[in-house]
Amino acid sequence: MATRLVQGGHKVVGFARSKESVEAAVKNGAEGASSLEEAIKKLSSSPKIVWVMVPSGKTTTETIEHAASLLNKGDIIIDGGNSNYKETIAHAEMLANKGIDFVDCGTSGGIWGLAEGYSLMIGGKKNVTEKLNPIFETLAPAKDLGWGRVGPHGAGHYVKMIHNGIEYGMMQAFAEGFGILKGKKEFELDLAQVSHIWQHGSVVRSWLLDLAANALDEDTELKDIKPWVADSGEGRWTVFESIDLDVPAPVITLALQMRFASRDEENYPARMLAALRNQFGGHAIKKSE
Amino acid sequence: MATRLVQGGHKVVGFARSKESVEAAVKNGAEGASSLEEAIKKLSSSPKIVWVMVPSGKTTTETIEHAASLLNKGDIIIDGGNSNYKETIAHAEMLANKGIDFVDCGTSGGIWGLAEGYSLMIGGKKNVTEKLNPIFETLAPAKDLGWGRVGPHGAGHYVKMIHNGIEYGMMQAFAEGFGILKGKKEFELDLAQVSHIWQHGSVVRSWLLDLAANALDEDTELKDIKPWVADSGEGRWTVFESIDLDVPAPVITLALQMRFASRDEENYPARMLAALRNQFGGHAIKKSE
Repeated sequence: MATRLVQGGHKVVGFARSKESVEAAVKNGAEGASSLEEAIKKLSSSPKIVWVMVPSGKTTTETIEHAASLLNKGDIIIDGGNSNYKETIAHAEMLANKGIDFVDCGTSGGIWGLAEGYSLMIGGKKNVTEKLNPIFETLAPAKDLGWGRVGPHGAGHYVKMIHNGIEYGMMQAFAEGFGILKGKKEFELDLAQVSHIWQHGSVVRSWLLDLAANALDEDTELKDIKPWVADSGEGRWTVFESIDLDVPAPVITLALQMRFASRDEENYPARMLAALRNQFGGHAIKKSE
Repeated sequence: MATRLVQGGHKVVGFARSKESVEAAVKNGAEGASSLEEAIKKLSSSPKIVWVMVPSGKTTTETIEHAASLLNKGDIIIDGGNSNYKETIAHAEMLANKGIDFVDCGTSGGIWGLAEGYSLMIGGKKNVTEKLNPIFETLAPAKDLGWGRVGPHGAGHYVKMIHNGIEYGMMQAFAEGFGILKGKKEFELDLAQVSHIWQHGSVVRSWLLDLAANALDEDTELKDIKPWVADSGEGRWTVFESIDLDVPAPVITLALQMRFASRDEENYPARMLAALRNQFGGHAIKKSE
């Protein structure tokens, strides 16, 4: 993101815990700093604008608090990470008490963002977010595409959270579809070919399908990939939100549960099911190896 | 599709039960026919090629049988509809006995296909499908994009069926995500705006999201749309297939079930749940109106 900003004519001072990240940003035209103090000292704009992009939770809160202690009234902190929107609202209140403005920016796009631009979902006070428009216009896919202020503090991260929840459902649908195609031995389907056919003109064409096609091109069998799927918070927050609002979201919930199932190598529930079948019907049990 | 073929330089003779459809095709440069007999008589190519595109099941079987009775050895019937792949294999065998060649072509793209081209998933004997390449090259989004022979008789419709199953899951994920956004009153989100932001640079960008954006632009409240969702067969066949193959497809299955739930206006299961809560805990029941 620093590189895209530099390419767009912005002055960027970069600091990260990893030296390599700072060096990479410097190589791409950013100024480097070896501490948050130094980075903020080097910012010459008024107000100073600090883009925080670190793991959500404690790290984000500590980084925002640290940055705030180095800033003055009227300066702006943007949280571009995947914070829980409730923490985001708390951060905004904490900063408001110090006279520091805050903006949350849900950021999507991943490693393709440098080339294609990032989708930005922005929350905060309109008179503050407007000051940042040149930044958003540069990071987004185009000046007037793929970004917008969607509401007050927290709304940006809220919309990003739901975006990720939808992503869970879409990914699981693709995974299951390709799973069935793989299971239909007699047709000897070439799943990479199928994914490429679908990329053009089909109803399921999408960026996620493009990624599926890439993965299948590399290895249709996906042999080197362990069937173990992480989740990084936003899926489960989406499900919590569905519960808090009494709004049904069964497929997103199930997509999250399937990730839990993928990681449950002991699979005690399946052992329990097998045991129950054996108990009531004398059905055979497979001995674990 | 007739129009796209005519625009691509193919000679097309069109017949449909609906006079209006034939007239529309004639207006766009096809030749018209008032019966299947007349249509096939007017075909001057050798072999004659008959593209059947009618509702799956009995109508498709009857149409294929009728066309076969009017064709000679070496002629070709293409089923471009959404036939169940098991029926497709039966049709291919029936036609093989008469010396008529058969090709199944799963076709995706809907009403945008004329402009953007259709995604085509083709099943059949290679030496037969190759004769039809000029047709597929014209119907597809580009000569070398969005189409291909994926396997033997039935494989084309099989891949199309799974495509539709994936579509069910993706659509349900979007529906649930927008449902939660709608339920979060305090942010006063503009769902049409959100959909447009996501169209560029986000992970969920897709043709289905483009359609969602269109629908939300027309009316964010979707007031005139009854919450009643049909299904046309391929979703349930995908679920049957998951069962036949012992391949888990929980999210696609649930997406199908949610369509059933949308149509269950009596909702006897929910009445039963409310009755049970009342029975064991004295929990209040709402009287139906």
